[in-house]
Amino acid sequence: MCAWLTDETRQDMAEERFSKEETLKMRQRLIGQSCRLFYSEDPVKIIKARGQYLFDENGQRYLDCISNVQHVGHCHPAVTKAAADQMDILNANSRFLHDNIVLYAERLAATLPKKLSVFYFVNSGSEANDLALRLAEQYTQHEDVIVLDHAYHGHLKSLIDISPYKFRKLAGQKEWVHVAPLPDTYRGLFREEHPNPGQAYANTVKDLIEEISRKGRKIAAFFAESLPSVGGQIIFPQGYFTKVAQYVRSAGGVFVVDEVQTGFGRAGSHYWAFQLQGEDFCPDIVTMGKPMGNGHPLACVATTAEIAGAFTANGVEYFNTFGGTPVSCAIGLAVLDVIEKEDLRGNAIRVGAHLKDLLKKLQQRHEIIGDVRGVGLFVGLELVTDRQSKRPATNTAAWVIKRLKEEDRICVSTDGPWENVLKFKPPMCFSMEDAELVVQSIDRILTDMKAKDLKLENEDI
Amino acid sequence: MCAWLTDETRQDMAEERFSKEETLKMRQRLIGQSCRLFYSEDPVKIIKARGQYLFDENGQRYLDCISNVQHVGHCHPAVTKAAADQMDILNANSRFLHDNIVLYAERLAATLPKKLSVFYFVNSGSEANDLALRLAEQYTQHEDVIVLDHAYHGHLKSLIDISPYKFRKLAGQKEWVHVAPLPDTYRGLFREEHPNPGQAYANTVKDLIEEISRKGRKIAAFFAESLPSVGGQIIFPQGYFTKVAQYVRSAGGVFVVDEVQTGFGRAGSHYWAFQLQGEDFCPDIVTMGKPMGNGHPLACVATTAEIAGAFTANGVEYFNTFGGTPVSCAIGLAVLDVIEKEDLRGNAIRVGAHLKDLLKKLQQRHEIIGDVRGVGLFVGLELVTDRQSKRPATNTAAWVIKRLKEEDRICVSTDGPWENVLKFKPPMCFSMEDAELVVQSIDRILTDMKAKDLKLENEDI
Repeated sequence: MCAWLTDETRQDMAEERFSKEETLKMRQRLIGQSCRLFYSEDPVKIIKARGQYLFDENGQRYLDCISNVQHVGHCHPAVTKAAADQMDILNANSRFLHDNIVLYAERLAATLPKKLSVFYFVNSGSEANDLALRLAEQYTQHEDVIVLDHAYHGHLKSLIDISPYKFRKLAGQKEWVHVAPLPDTYRGLFREEHPNPGQAYANTVKDLIEEISRKGRKIAAFFAESLPSVGGQIIFPQGYFTKVAQYVRSAGGVFVVDEVQTGFGRAGSHYWAFQLQGEDFCPDIVTMGKPMGNGHPLACVATTAEIAGAFTANGVEYFNTFGGTPVSCAIGLAVLDVIEKEDLRGNAIRVGAHLKDLLKKLQQRHEIIGDVRGVGLFVGLELVTDRQSKRPATNTAAWVIKRLKEEDRICVSTDGPWENVLKFKPPMCFSMEDAELVVQSIDRILTDMKAKDLKLENEDI
Repeated sequence: MCAWLTDETRQDMAEERFSKEETLKMRQRLIGQSCRLFYSEDPVKIIKARGQYLFDENGQRYLDCISNVQHVGHCHPAVTKAAADQMDILNANSRFLHDNIVLYAERLAATLPKKLSVFYFVNSGSEANDLALRLAEQYTQHEDVIVLDHAYHGHLKSLIDISPYKFRKLAGQKEWVHVAPLPDTYRGLFREEHPNPGQAYANTVKDLIEEISRKGRKIAAFFAESLPSVGGQIIFPQGYFTKVAQYVRSAGGVFVVDEVQTGFGRAGSHYWAFQLQGEDFCPDIVTMGKPMGNGHPLACVATTAEIAGAFTANGVEYFNTFGGTPVSCAIGLAVLDVIEKEDLRGNAIRVGAHLKDLLKKLQQRHEIIGDVRGVGLFVGLELVTDRQSKRPATNTAAWVIKRLKEEDRICVSTDGPWENVLKFKPPMCFSMEDAELVVQSIDRILTDMKAKDLKLENEDI
């Protein structure tokens, strides 16, 4: 392997061109302000990163608990080398035959149920979900879509339409979109104490389908993230997907799982988070994105031969300029290799379990921690003002995030409809020590809050 | 500069893993067949490329006349180095402050009219056009869109809706979409001999706006490629954009130019093809894509502070996971540098003029050449069965493309509603010799056709 960048070169490259203040001013002037910064009151300038660590312009190190895109670690040398080597050889479009695209598709197919054997490569999770919609419509010849409450499937017009998280703030709900309750067993309709929450939540979809049918409308697809992310790091009750798939298919629709946030082994025990729902469940379409290229714009739709066949049968070409180029596929292959070679799924199981365990212990000592949930390195910590009412402790969550950044240089962020769920979805090389560090910090901050008798929830912070 | 890949390594990297037959079989099995191959009857396997040349698995060289994406040349070492260096340092998302994104936006701003000062970075021309639609709708609070006949603006659901080239074969025309005649002065409504085709075509838009207004509908945007590409390599008559902009703005709409195919100096004389319409024309939104990252998924929307402000005012974040990362921007900056350092605009002027000149001479000797048109390295050669009726010589165009590939290893393709326009939009390093080679080859093929008295247009080839 060619050592094509010495540490000195890295240092040079990472030098700033502008002071942080200047960068911020230019950003405010030149970049659309809808593109928000983390810690908007005092944003962080990051100029280097490695593994699970970020470095600011003063060389200060931050522990990164949120960058699920940099899946195998920031700036992994094997990924960089694969990209650079292929960029030097060829990066033509996929209208020419090339080995990388077929090799990569074959490697992905090996991680999925046999039925999901046809691939379309695109540039983002949003492009993948948009194509999934097109595939579902073409195959079913239906139009309507059922989505889960609080879901987010992407920034494109078509996806805002199927994302309650966005459309409620924008154009509103279209007549072809139907929202099913989020199967949240902590604060949803049916909770942990319910004898069969999976079946109960599936019944809500069944009822919705009947209601839609009575209106004379027809279901093209049921869309769900395998583990809802902006919805609040939710883990579905067992049996939910299998039952829903049965109802959706009976109505002539297809089941689309959005693995954009959760795929590629983040769950640890399984390569795809939908597999947590058991072997008797197989989706019709799977979309993948964020972690796929470790930061490179790479995403994908996997589907069945039947659905792909129906899409081909319309006779219209699907051409995605950058989708499936030799470079994108070389990067994707390198990511798969690193996941295996470094046993990152094993690491997600071990470190994820340790993190959850430590947070559960923290919950015993801090009343404000209402729930700890997660699987592998996808973990949520839900803060509530009291455990009975489960009133979201939104301000406290924001305050913890701020102090973690300012006092300990740890990047965590919040999710959930009330932004009261601290989310952990770090690069998969996250270590036992990292987990201990972040939990100790949260402990100290919550302890300090109690000591000072801080009541943040009634304040306008 | 670190010589991080020797020629020997390049050779190794470019070795095949599968035979061509095997690759093709795997592709047919694993990749959606809507993703078509060039030369579908006998596709080409390309394993290396450099500049304007492609190399197949046997080391055979092909001259590439069509890859406008690989704008500064396939595998340009300066672009590869910029990507690799930045990948090794940092590729976090744009929620952290970073110099590359602001530096890149500033460099792009310098190429545009002052009014276009705010940027959104995305991953593809399709994502850019989808965002342009959202910006236009949010700013105008109108919904309707006027597009040109035969236009193609991308593969997303929202863009198929505004692409007659696609929607005619798919879901059909939506009630909020209106199609204006393509200002084609060769075979359109108003031709070269018309005293003022620019005004005449602009009047068709004016009439359309009045018709839309009578229906009680309101225009959000007029969308047009600066030089329609799949429409048939069309050059607009002077004055068209200025007049249309006036009518569209009077109706409360904005003017969006799609520079995805044509930007970054392809026109030679101007950085952006819309600037061919004169200094008194300035669009409200410009979308960029294909050539921007020389093959890296990189695209952008540029707009005014007013439009960006209206988009911010809705209070909803726009987050594009991979948009504007340090790596994407480093690549974009490297492309801008190469365009300048290698005077690729100068090359586009010189070589483009020579190519057009040679093709014009060819037209004098071959009746089948109905029209030669173009600007810089965006050139079209339209074949017709006779010059009076202008009946498209579609079969002959396909036959020329096939023979250029088989006999001379030259990649050219067709465009236009009848696929009878040979299009040239090569990497910008295309040389005088390359231009001469392709014109000689076309001459030989057309001469041979005449000698053999081949009449292909009535055959089902």
